[in-house]
Amino acid sequence: MNYETVSLAAKFAKFSETFQPKVIAQMNDYQFKLARAQGDFVWHSHEETDEAFLVIEGELVIEFRDGRVVLGPGEMFVVPKGKEHKPFAASECKLMLIEPVGTVNTGKAGGELTASNDVWI
Amino acid sequence: MNYETVSLAAKFAKFSETFQPKVIAQMNDYQFKLARAQGDFVWHSHEETDEAFLVIEGELVIEFRDGRVVLGPGEMFVVPKGKEHKPFAASECKLMLIEPVGTVNTGKAGGELTASNDVWI
Repeated sequence: MNYETVSLAAKFAKFSETFQPKVIAQMNDYQFKLARAQGDFVWHSHEETDEAFLVIEGELVIEFRDGRVVLGPGEMFVVPKGKEHKPFAASECKLMLIEPVGTVNTGKAGGELTASNDVWI
Repeated sequence: MNYETVSLAAKFAKFSETFQPKVIAQMNDYQFKLARAQGDFVWHSHEETDEAFLVIEGELVIEFRDGRVVLGPGEMFVVPKGKEHKPFAASECKLMLIEPVGTVNTGKAGGELTASNDVWI
């Protein structure tokens, strides 16, 4: 039998909303999520976990209180747990997040950009 | 200050050997590793953990006792823990592995293709 691959492009084609991560795969108790980003996200942190970002298309800026990182396609960054950050994309950016099951996109900040969690596509 | 990105292309440029995963980033107790694959790897399994594969360039076949999956660029697959698998690449393939710290490339199979672990580039 042929097992089915998880195609990032095919998964991205299934949604268009921004800042609403979608789960595409799980490894132990970690999930791979795709998201589109455009504009400013909120300042937040994850007190319990690091969070990995991998940019697939476009450019993502992650602002910190003491600096920033600018990620292009094929570039990644791991935000340490507890470190405040604010993602920003001047134009739409496609990215993958890798983080533990149950990680909420806005961390402890909450607010209207808080997305439903554990939404698989 | 500008934080440094982890560029997959820049990291791949730092090594040429096949089947020798190199760590490029860590998130909690999980590592992101880059590897080049060419030819046949060995049959093996990881009894303690799932293992995620993401193909960056080229084509990777992962054979199982009951089938196979063929991964092209931008496609991923999570091999469940305990499931025997044998990666194969007809021509050189660049891939990313995501797995817990300490995961050995040949699992419990051992043998001459067993790579040094926890080698950062």
